[in-house]
Amino acid sequence: MSDLEIRPAALDDVPAIVAMLADDPLGARRESPDDLVPYHAAFRRLADDTNQHLVVAVRDGQVVGTLQLTVVPGLSRRGSTRSIIEGVRIHADERGSGLGTQLIQWAVDESRREGCQLVQLTSDATRTDAHRFYERLGFTASHVGFKLTL
Amino acid sequence: MSDLEIRPAALDDVPAIVAMLADDPLGARRESPDDLVPYHAAFRRLADDTNQHLVVAVRDGQVVGTLQLTVVPGLSRRGSTRSIIEGVRIHADERGSGLGTQLIQWAVDESRREGCQLVQLTSDATRTDAHRFYERLGFTASHVGFKLTL
Repeated sequence: MSDLEIRPAALDDVPAIVAMLADDPLGARRESPDDLVPYHAAFRRLADDTNQHLVVAVRDGQVVGTLQLTVVPGLSRRGSTRSIIEGVRIHADERGSGLGTQLIQWAVDESRREGCQLVQLTSDATRTDAHRFYERLGFTASHVGFKLTL
Repeated sequence: MSDLEIRPAALDDVPAIVAMLADDPLGARRESPDDLVPYHAAFRRLADDTNQHLVVAVRDGQVVGTLQLTVVPGLSRRGSTRSIIEGVRIHADERGSGLGTQLIQWAVDESRREGCQLVQLTSDATRTDAHRFYERLGFTASHVGFKLTL
């Protein structure tokens, strides 16, 4: 495979990112790729926040992966800064290519550069393949993740 | 019980917050209440970030509870903004008083005011009492929480 670039997402990448968010068993029910207005508004909010890193993986000029890394300072654990990974998606053509590993490795490396002591993420309980993937990368499934929809 | 105030934490509240973080089966192993330097640095970082809300609950002039609410914009779920609750602690003298419910309700209300569509948190798998507490408040234990210490 040809070279991969992982770089900050640009406004022009939003359609490709939303297409990947929607091409997913859970995402298909909650995304609206035909109406990009709310995504553009969210993109601008992310771009204005220096603790947010929305990135894309690009191969041969095509967006083939994405994730969002959020840096969160805090008092717990002797004033540790942690990072949170959200919205990991790999294009269907790239699944099994090792791209997921490269993206998560990028997020871990960037977290170190930002001075984080901890990286965390949650994964829907139904995504058992993803759970094995994160455990292979050294993550520990130590927590229960709770959500409340407003 | 007398009136309770939930307000933004001030620098002077840091010792009381750290004492609560440390007075906990898990926190006892990872906090250093005798060395506040890293906590003061983290407090300043939180104070400079408009997406961070570190609050304390105060009764009769005493800090009796704390939590950190982080507002996280994102593209997923039609550009939803979510909030993340971390570092929930209730003073030993106040456990069972309903203060936990009041603090979480504050966080949910503040999340609505900030335009969030989702509130999320993770809880260590060993904190089974906390899990029942969050489920009683309407949260769903839908996710597995992964952590990687750097």
